[in-house]
Amino acid sequence: MRENILIVGGVALGPKAACRCKRLNHDAEVTIIDENHHISYGGCGIPYYVSGEVNNLDDLRATPYHTIRDPEFFRSMKGVTVRTRTRAISIDRAAKKLLVKDLGSGREENLPYDNLLLATGARPRIPPVEGHDLEGVLALTKLEAAEAVRMACQNGAVNSAVIVGGSFIGLETAVALADMWGIKVSVVEMANQLLPGVLSPDLARMALHDCVKRNVDVFTGEKIERITGKDNAVRNVLTEQREIPCELVIFATGFIPNSDLAKSAGLEVTSFGAVLVDEYMRTSDKSIYAGGDCVSIKNIITGKPGHLPLGSMANRQGRVIGTNLAGGSAVFSGYVGSWAVKLFDLSFCGAGLTVENARKEGFDAVSVSVEQLDRAHFYPEKSMMSLTLVADKGDGRVLGIQGAGPAGDALKARIDAVAGVLQYARPTIGDISNLEISYSPPFASAMDIVNVVANVAENMLAGRFQPITAEAFMELWAARAKNGVFFIDARPTVAGKTVEAEQPDWHAIPLEEIDARVAEVPRDGPVALICNTGLRSYDSVLILARHGIVNVVNVMGGMQAALKMGLQP
Amino acid sequence: MRENILIVGGVALGPKAACRCKRLNHDAEVTIIDENHHISYGGCGIPYYVSGEVNNLDDLRATPYHTIRDPEFFRSMKGVTVRTRTRAISIDRAAKKLLVKDLGSGREENLPYDNLLLATGARPRIPPVEGHDLEGVLALTKLEAAEAVRMACQNGAVNSAVIVGGSFIGLETAVALADMWGIKVSVVEMANQLLPGVLSPDLARMALHDCVKRNVDVFTGEKIERITGKDNAVRNVLTEQREIPCELVIFATGFIPNSDLAKSAGLEVTSFGAVLVDEYMRTSDKSIYAGGDCVSIKNIITGKPGHLPLGSMANRQGRVIGTNLAGGSAVFSGYVGSWAVKLFDLSFCGAGLTVENARKEGFDAVSVSVEQLDRAHFYPEKSMMSLTLVADKGDGRVLGIQGAGPAGDALKARIDAVAGVLQYARPTIGDISNLEISYSPPFASAMDIVNVVANVAENMLAGRFQPITAEAFMELWAARAKNGVFFIDARPTVAGKTVEAEQPDWHAIPLEEIDARVAEVPRDGPVALICNTGLRSYDSVLILARHGIVNVVNVMGGMQAALKMGLQP
Repeated sequence: MRENILIVGGVALGPKAACRCKRLNHDAEVTIIDENHHISYGGCGIPYYVSGEVNNLDDLRATPYHTIRDPEFFRSMKGVTVRTRTRAISIDRAAKKLLVKDLGSGREENLPYDNLLLATGARPRIPPVEGHDLEGVLALTKLEAAEAVRMACQNGAVNSAVIVGGSFIGLETAVALADMWGIKVSVVEMANQLLPGVLSPDLARMALHDCVKRNVDVFTGEKIERITGKDNAVRNVLTEQREIPCELVIFATGFIPNSDLAKSAGLEVTSFGAVLVDEYMRTSDKSIYAGGDCVSIKNIITGKPGHLPLGSMANRQGRVIGTNLAGGSAVFSGYVGSWAVKLFDLSFCGAGLTVENARKEGFDAVSVSVEQLDRAHFYPEKSMMSLTLVADKGDGRVLGIQGAGPAGDALKARIDAVAGVLQYARPTIGDISNLEISYSPPFASAMDIVNVVANVAENMLAGRFQPITAEAFMELWAARAKNGVFFIDARPTVAGKTVEAEQPDWHAIPLEEIDARVAEVPRDGPVALICNTGLRSYDSVLILARHGIVNVVNVMGGMQAALKMGLQP
Repeated sequence: MRENILIVGGVALGPKAACRCKRLNHDAEVTIIDENHHISYGGCGIPYYVSGEVNNLDDLRATPYHTIRDPEFFRSMKGVTVRTRTRAISIDRAAKKLLVKDLGSGREENLPYDNLLLATGARPRIPPVEGHDLEGVLALTKLEAAEAVRMACQNGAVNSAVIVGGSFIGLETAVALADMWGIKVSVVEMANQLLPGVLSPDLARMALHDCVKRNVDVFTGEKIERITGKDNAVRNVLTEQREIPCELVIFATGFIPNSDLAKSAGLEVTSFGAVLVDEYMRTSDKSIYAGGDCVSIKNIITGKPGHLPLGSMANRQGRVIGTNLAGGSAVFSGYVGSWAVKLFDLSFCGAGLTVENARKEGFDAVSVSVEQLDRAHFYPEKSMMSLTLVADKGDGRVLGIQGAGPAGDALKARIDAVAGVLQYARPTIGDISNLEISYSPPFASAMDIVNVVANVAENMLAGRFQPITAEAFMELWAARAKNGVFFIDARPTVAGKTVEAEQPDWHAIPLEEIDARVAEVPRDGPVALICNTGLRSYDSVLILARHGIVNVVNVMGGMQAALKMGLQP
């Protein structure tokens, strides 16, 4: 089938779709145009190039077998034509022609197509503050920018940097600059927490503490107002609250889908500017496909159109589109929103909705959190994992899961196990209680944390205990002079007594003693219980309940959660 | 509700069910009887105690907060009565009474019950060979045996050991003895491979090579015939082929469900001797529950009754039963068969059926294998993972997944992601192609191995290439004088040329050159292609196909797979 396939955009999805199409239909004429010089690079790797972990910029452009993916590679190895430095100007849908401009010669040309693919990606959302165009102010989406930042670091030209935006790329870049180059980094995030939208405030507090421990300043709930410079080079970032001296400002404030070409051709786009596609990744014009960072796809949990600009989404969508461009009928049914990010000592990972987002979406959502070892507690190498499950109170439907832990792969294992079920089933809390993950002591607990977090959710929804976060507990503790809360530490004697010795309002009543010492506890409460992870304090809650003491809250994750948040009594 | 709950068996499921029941219904009288002294221990931890990784035997009996789970613990902390050294003799179902015998005093007693739970576990299947009762011959299921083996190792009393059985416990024990104590270990396995039933021969060959590399002798397809001793202590194991001197023989030859009590009470048991239960974990007598290693539960993939004696199964079933004993109606809907085992340098993990088992179950099953890095290829810390997907040729239904890799948690993440979907959906190959796992370069590839293995399966089922295993390739290579196969190495020039220089029948034709050098390839084949991982050779297959050369097989996993199997041309 000698079809003429034209692809606009050559970073991730475009090349993937081109190669897949060409593999299935060798007779197709496949041409990629891209306005930039570099194509087919792993943009997600940029923070690791900046840090020096990826040594060579070419590593981000190479195949696993170390061949550079340049136009010649695509021509000789894949039979795909690539025209770089060529901009798509407009689409003539009736004539099935794309007007392009060679940025070198300035020459314009009409390219005919049978099928067109828009893989135009997204551009960084840069707030129009004064000074955003100074030298040393940039977004880290292009290889050239990555190179410039890495060179500046290597040359010692940067002592202090400000990252604007505390989401994935912002934090990955903060780690790269602080951990590897020893640069003083400040992260300014408009929202009241890091990783807004993907983590609840309590897990986000762990992310914050992980940064702060490593000398990264984090200013949440703060907006930058102005960037000042000297001799056209950046010198200061000014927020509402402070002035931060710096030689580098990196904007990581989200992305805007590149949909102008689609819009001006009359294709349907969403209110947030992403190209609308069906499950075959076709736009409202059946000869035009679109995918990757420029499109909107269905959020499987909410059923609503969403936007998830990730390299992994682009690759999978690219294969689906490639199949369809070759005459197939592959489908891409949507996303659940899985993500992972490595910070300093902790990694974070999640899928589905946070409790806050779930409520915004109209779910009657609740969440519970647990701290548990990531493998058998008797196994020598192990670490504490935090896991949060989000569910609908009404029908017990699981809506999301997020977590934190030092062993990133172990965390990922729990998140991905639930993510798959979220994608293809409609799990309830009971389903996750019985989720069958692979078990042996070096890899999991016999009652694993992913099952336990569901068990805890079930206990909570059955009214067996009233959970609070470690953060909320510490707020109660701070206000103890006013609120009259009776604080019980249910840990084994030594741990509790140590705090008790310093804090007279702290009552060390180990689980083993609570039944005998119940008379010490005020019958009508309020009582707040804490232990090391929440396990012993839950047992204490049940014992108190038997004695009719029910005005009791229990800290999920206990002192372990507090510790990760940098909190102590 | 003052119910009388009687539980026979106090290792894993019994205590879990007891505590859960008691938490939900504090008024219940819950009694556990067990004929042994030790209860509530982590039997799965025994190999790690033997190795010394778990320092103290008590660690296997302790809660995560370091309290020993002895009868006093259950009495004071859980309100559960435990009677050790007490054997259940028979059930009077009409009178709802259990006859028990105190093994100390010999006194018999009838204990009434409202609900009875059989948590009788399974016993090691010890083949009745001559010498099986010699000193130094044992199964590693009880703490006392673990202690004896550890002491013998510590005292230097064991120079050589024979492990009979190459499944999970056998191999974990082999690692414990060889890696930690430097004991010469021989594993004798009746089947033709290690880990029979859970791994296909090619992955099993990787397990074998992992053992052999560390000086463990593995004799597969061999049966022990006799054990000889001197002064009642073991001295030799004799198989059909050899005599192995040793001071220790450990039987790890599977388990027999302990169902005599159930059988003699007239409860339904399966043909393989496991107690039959419904989804509420009730036996054919609705007042009697059963769970854990003594029961049969439904295999969700085949729909047939199966047996999976794992501590994780016991714990989850225990919670379900505890809920139901307290008047609830929790369900346990079956298992998909997820497992994990850590050997020396590699770990293995799987879920669902192997291709061989799937065929036995009547599926028209095929499998494909891939080798790919477990995270972004440009990320500095990474390792090669092997993944095998099993699917039905007819409808593309995914039936199982197995894998190997040095980073156990990373492997587990891929297996568990698919396991969850196997449990709650009925995934097709296309579903796994689009499985949404969490992505960022330190944790996954943008097109991750778990997606790629499904993509490869799809390509294979579509007839785009004809796969062979690395083992089959090396067999073809060994027989090259007779079979006339033309061998092509599609790796980059250097790697292929090195082999070509030594092996005149080896044709180094890198992917980059194959189009130009197609005349060198015999038009009618047979041709066998190999590269580093299978990626470049697949591209070569497509190029040859365009030239009409189709009698071509391609090695899945390439030289990387061969390397893990200890094979080379």
